[in-house]
Amino acid sequence: MKADFSPIFSPQTVAVIGASEDKRKLGFHVMKSLLEGGFGGTVFPVNPSRKEVMGLRAYPSLEGIEGNVDLAIVVVPATSVKEQIIACRRKGVRGIVLITAGFSEIDDPSGAALQEEIGRLATEAGIPIIGPNTFGLVNLHHGLNASFTPEFSLLKKGGVTLLSQSGGMSHLLAFLAMREEVGFSKIVGLGNRCNVDFHDILAWFVDDRETSCIALYLEGVDSARALWGEALSLRGKKPIVAYKCGRSDLGDRASKSHTGSLAGDANLYKGAMIQTGILWVEDSLELLDASKALASSALPKGERVAILSGQAGPAMAAMDVCWACGLKVEPFKGSTQEAIDELLPPLALRTNPVDMGPAWYDSKAIARIVETALLAEEVDLVLLLIMFASANSQAPRGLMEVLFNWKGKKPVLGCIMAPPGIWEDEVRELEAEGAMINFPTPERAAKAASFLCRWARFRDYGHL
Amino acid sequence: MKADFSPIFSPQTVAVIGASEDKRKLGFHVMKSLLEGGFGGTVFPVNPSRKEVMGLRAYPSLEGIEGNVDLAIVVVPATSVKEQIIACRRKGVRGIVLITAGFSEIDDPSGAALQEEIGRLATEAGIPIIGPNTFGLVNLHHGLNASFTPEFSLLKKGGVTLLSQSGGMSHLLAFLAMREEVGFSKIVGLGNRCNVDFHDILAWFVDDRETSCIALYLEGVDSARALWGEALSLRGKKPIVAYKCGRSDLGDRASKSHTGSLAGDANLYKGAMIQTGILWVEDSLELLDASKALASSALPKGERVAILSGQAGPAMAAMDVCWACGLKVEPFKGSTQEAIDELLPPLALRTNPVDMGPAWYDSKAIARIVETALLAEEVDLVLLLIMFASANSQAPRGLMEVLFNWKGKKPVLGCIMAPPGIWEDEVRELEAEGAMINFPTPERAAKAASFLCRWARFRDYGHL
Repeated sequence: MKADFSPIFSPQTVAVIGASEDKRKLGFHVMKSLLEGGFGGTVFPVNPSRKEVMGLRAYPSLEGIEGNVDLAIVVVPATSVKEQIIACRRKGVRGIVLITAGFSEIDDPSGAALQEEIGRLATEAGIPIIGPNTFGLVNLHHGLNASFTPEFSLLKKGGVTLLSQSGGMSHLLAFLAMREEVGFSKIVGLGNRCNVDFHDILAWFVDDRETSCIALYLEGVDSARALWGEALSLRGKKPIVAYKCGRSDLGDRASKSHTGSLAGDANLYKGAMIQTGILWVEDSLELLDASKALASSALPKGERVAILSGQAGPAMAAMDVCWACGLKVEPFKGSTQEAIDELLPPLALRTNPVDMGPAWYDSKAIARIVETALLAEEVDLVLLLIMFASANSQAPRGLMEVLFNWKGKKPVLGCIMAPPGIWEDEVRELEAEGAMINFPTPERAAKAASFLCRWARFRDYGHL
Repeated sequence: MKADFSPIFSPQTVAVIGASEDKRKLGFHVMKSLLEGGFGGTVFPVNPSRKEVMGLRAYPSLEGIEGNVDLAIVVVPATSVKEQIIACRRKGVRGIVLITAGFSEIDDPSGAALQEEIGRLATEAGIPIIGPNTFGLVNLHHGLNASFTPEFSLLKKGGVTLLSQSGGMSHLLAFLAMREEVGFSKIVGLGNRCNVDFHDILAWFVDDRETSCIALYLEGVDSARALWGEALSLRGKKPIVAYKCGRSDLGDRASKSHTGSLAGDANLYKGAMIQTGILWVEDSLELLDASKALASSALPKGERVAILSGQAGPAMAAMDVCWACGLKVEPFKGSTQEAIDELLPPLALRTNPVDMGPAWYDSKAIARIVETALLAEEVDLVLLLIMFASANSQAPRGLMEVLFNWKGKKPVLGCIMAPPGIWEDEVRELEAEGAMINFPTPERAAKAASFLCRWARFRDYGHL
């Protein structure tokens, strides 16, 4: 069902049905997530056998709560879920996160039947359910951690929203994002999708101001046609990147028992995505990298890349990826080349890629080379690759002014890499200002650039 | 030239020709690397205009040094290099690291001519030269940092030796290795290879007891035939992994000006590598991952993988990679499956992959599932995937005993991932004991597994 998902992502009041102080229960971890995650609204623990949970007054049932409940998080056993959904209807709850498992993903057909029934009950009352069989969701812009993993709140706030069919993959991507400081807006575990499937919720995120790129992890959807239709109607509005697993012949079996859907033929998915403007990625790191770039970079006007590198090897590696992805790394025009020639000693590789190494001790020359490439009409995107060496320790600092001046005008993706503890502040500052987006390898930077170019081409010309 | 490279990698006495206290000179950084890197031998700074460099007595020339000089590191300008090589001959120096640039990589043909001459002079005297146009080398097992980057000494000691045509790529791989705690034996920048090329030095590393996997980064070699011949004669003795850049049509131009060789046709390289038993990787992360696995894992007897996962999504991702790489993820035999069935509640995905999630609170059951897979005759390698959640926080600790018991017997590659600061000790302990090798994503773990399987097959059956 399509719905207003605001009460789910930005609730003022949240009830936890099955709140607990027993660390072996998910109801404990959900309470911990809510209370430690910086949520500014009111939390109502619901537990008939407790007067208090974690210092908050506990309610025997939803009914007993005075005032409205925007969001109910349900963690009671599957057998008790139906009565709680009915209670939510009576209470006028506006959205449900149903963490409990044991529905369409189990072999016993009673699981699917129960899921259908609770879906119907909620849909009749206009209540969207995220789940069942999910870890929950987080909205970092609202301080809302409605999941059983308090550590999600460690994520940096940013523009990437992940809609995922897998809790494990959501956790993995979150942990990678923490290490690489990728900022997230929301992470949503759609689980078995009892009445909210990918196609129901996609448009809401396209309109969501706090989301600038939508990342999808999927295994198989039951209503693929609805997803492609929705993507088609939203095409060009906001970048959507998808990682589809379950490609092998064994995928169907595993996917079915995971979140209750067959994986289906990966090539059909890929073809449909290309037609509907969803960017296809090959693995979890690519999903993260493409999302990071698309969430915060200016878009290139074409595919012409200038590779400015402190060292030749990384430039070669980036050039290979550009070439494989159809990006253009072409010689500069005469005037650009002349300007660069003046800034480099005769030994250097001066054309595209430019090996800036021989000018390391002259940070002004480095900055002017970068500026020259940014000014060049024939350059749509700059790849800036600098591996730390003692001689270039001042390089990122020296580049800041020119990169700040150009922010938002022409995309600069980089691989500025150093031993742990070195250059971290500089990179963080550049990324925070949106003046450069950094990746741990030249190949990942170049691949991310290819997603920017593909998205820009799709938006401008309608094909990927 | 082939030579005994021991004086280069394990010298007792090192002269730095061009030692300096001027931070703008490489001679400063080389001295710093040597003095701060834990080198136990004697360092002789050579500088005619100083009495002392960094607290050490400086010598006006090599001649003035009493006693033998095993290794000379040369950082004087290109125009002075020839006389220093002659001085090295006279002194009986046993090996040279020639950092200076400005030889065959420059457009001016005088560069190539000079390089040929110094190569000849050194070869006549039986002195191997690493370089010119190199950052130098490090040998972590000897505390020797003969490079202009003191930070190389931060690397963990281990079994991977990198032979690289690019300093930038060596720095990148070192920084990645520091983040991911991959242990290195040696990193060697071969530069322009004036008398020591890949094929000259390969056999020495195959014999080197401190090297258990050889990683190559190359762009183009001048004497490819010699390299394939050497690889062929060494085949099956030690795993060799190669990353070849310069694949695009632009590669030749960039490669020539980098270290003086044409890049050549990548497909010819790939074909030759497959025939000679060198494992081909697609990017820098794969080079690191394959090397890490090959340097420290037991080898599988076949390609049959058990995927044991805490969550279904990561298992799906790993399964896709296994499938794409030709590994087998097949249902278990009856007795294995029965043993696993007893340990899991009915909701779980019990066959291969096994979703261990439903048993999280029973760490003994988890350990017994892992043990069952390790015992199974039909399993050659275990992929262990665990994403942190509050419910499974004790899981890695609970697995240690069984993994320690099985170390060296059957390979276990994993992706045990958590927020920064969590599970780091457990993973470090498991890796230090050689009981598991960890990777940041399930896909990277599965890909690394495929390199183990390919190498094992090559060693046992002679084809990749």
